[in-house]
Amino acid sequence: MSILVVGSVALDSVETPFGKVENVLGGSATYFSIAASFFYHDICLVGVVGTDFPQQHVDFLISRGIDLDGLEQIEGGKTFRWGGSYIDDLNAAETHFTDLNVFSDFQPKLPESYKNSSYVFLANINPELQMNVLKQITNPKLVVCDTMNLWIGISLPILLETLRKVDILILNDAEARQLTGENNLTQAGKQILTFGPTRVIIKKGEHGAISLTESTFFSAPAYPLTAVFDPTGAGDSFAGGFMGSLATADNVSEQSVRRSIINGTVIASFNVEDFSLDRQQTLTPEEIDERFRQLEEIVRF
Amino acid sequence: MSILVVGSVALDSVETPFGKVENVLGGSATYFSIAASFFYHDICLVGVVGTDFPQQHVDFLISRGIDLDGLEQIEGGKTFRWGGSYIDDLNAAETHFTDLNVFSDFQPKLPESYKNSSYVFLANINPELQMNVLKQITNPKLVVCDTMNLWIGISLPILLETLRKVDILILNDAEARQLTGENNLTQAGKQILTFGPTRVIIKKGEHGAISLTESTFFSAPAYPLTAVFDPTGAGDSFAGGFMGSLATADNVSEQSVRRSIINGTVIASFNVEDFSLDRQQTLTPEEIDERFRQLEEIVRF
Repeated sequence: MSILVVGSVALDSVETPFGKVENVLGGSATYFSIAASFFYHDICLVGVVGTDFPQQHVDFLISRGIDLDGLEQIEGGKTFRWGGSYIDDLNAAETHFTDLNVFSDFQPKLPESYKNSSYVFLANINPELQMNVLKQITNPKLVVCDTMNLWIGISLPILLETLRKVDILILNDAEARQLTGENNLTQAGKQILTFGPTRVIIKKGEHGAISLTESTFFSAPAYPLTAVFDPTGAGDSFAGGFMGSLATADNVSEQSVRRSIINGTVIASFNVEDFSLDRQQTLTPEEIDERFRQLEEIVRF
Repeated sequence: MSILVVGSVALDSVETPFGKVENVLGGSATYFSIAASFFYHDICLVGVVGTDFPQQHVDFLISRGIDLDGLEQIEGGKTFRWGGSYIDDLNAAETHFTDLNVFSDFQPKLPESYKNSSYVFLANINPELQMNVLKQITNPKLVVCDTMNLWIGISLPILLETLRKVDILILNDAEARQLTGENNLTQAGKQILTFGPTRVIIKKGEHGAISLTESTFFSAPAYPLTAVFDPTGAGDSFAGGFMGSLATADNVSEQSVRRSIINGTVIASFNVEDFSLDRQQTLTPEEIDERFRQLEEIVRF
């Protein structure tokens, strides 16, 4: 009963008001799987890297128990590289470069052992690839999907086709507005439910998240950080914590989903405290539990 | 043990995507006191109107039990009038005109019976007038203050002097950022606590509100409305519901404050469902209780 994630594995160069790093570990599948690993122990990653991908990153992923049978390494290829900064606005990256490299020809091919995965996360890759992955999965219990402004802009028809096969869509507030043309987020969420997903989770950064189904509405607080060091990977860390927690609960009751959203919030809050996945290198279950309790206290009235 | 509010009583002309009204009842003291009246029954209003102020509005305030001994009527004067629209952005009014009229010479003079008020709300008038009011109050239990971008911009020294005498500052996210120069709201809130207030409540519109003291942090959800008809008066309705509820509890324990913030949220959510104070004309305690319960459910995990 594994969690499958398909997405990017990357080397990032990032600048924030607090500093600058080059060619550090990044990518949506990376952030997702590491976050999920704090809650669940059977995580399968599908992605692609080049021969320049440092062994230490492979070792880190393996040390967290991530199954890398689906991580293709292209002989002589270069790993996907992204460079960006958050100088003026910590909520929006300014992209400096996107070198897709081996990612440009990425055709996710699932190892046989991955095909019966129960929990599937389609990170924000081209919706055609997301569809392609879904066709290879035998009988998933839950399909969760992310997307981004790019695909809403250039691949809307195939994205909408994909959404019909998705159980939960996770996206941010700007994307929810773009996808629906609705400024009111509650209204946007309700409209997204007519596209296929039975649940939509709208991430609002420093304002937390909301989660809607036909009959429920959940408002999750943000963890009150006094400084965000580097927001890269926050969304994928949220999704990873969410799905790892949900897979452990192994049910999608409203309560399990809500507690999993809080776990996603917690992991995302740690992720933004340092560059890359540096904070996760030392993160302990006790620290996670402590923030979960703090969030309970923060909303109690 | 009364609640005292000092602020504007106005005639508003408002346009929203849903319609247009002219010369309807408005003003910060009006919205505040009507909201408070749903929770508390000893509310004293200090303000000023002209002889053009319709008797029906006076009757409405009296019907809600508001003490109007402090509402000065200037013979031959014209009531403060504000005109604005929320066409492009329901979170920010575009002001079309501000005719201060009798409000331009407003010097709040408290009737003798008001001077021992326990709960004082200084709506967002000139901080000099706020100070002036505080000097007339004998021994308040709690002083709550609102302010706005205008005063932060042109009257910062006197505003900061006022804040040293205030227990709770209520302001919106943009104002908190402007007042502190801090983009991070948690950080902004912490900085405001160094200015004097022991608590700050930052309103975030559709994202709810946060409330900070030295040792506590509360995140309040917004009530998930699918449409905001007219946001005018939402902030003052929030403050009124908050203080009315708090005066009834008659203590400022963290729990009382939190539940009062939720009551403020509820009244504000009703207020924006119609123009002016029209929704409050028919609002029942049962409807208020129902939304309070819904908000409990919305944050539960």
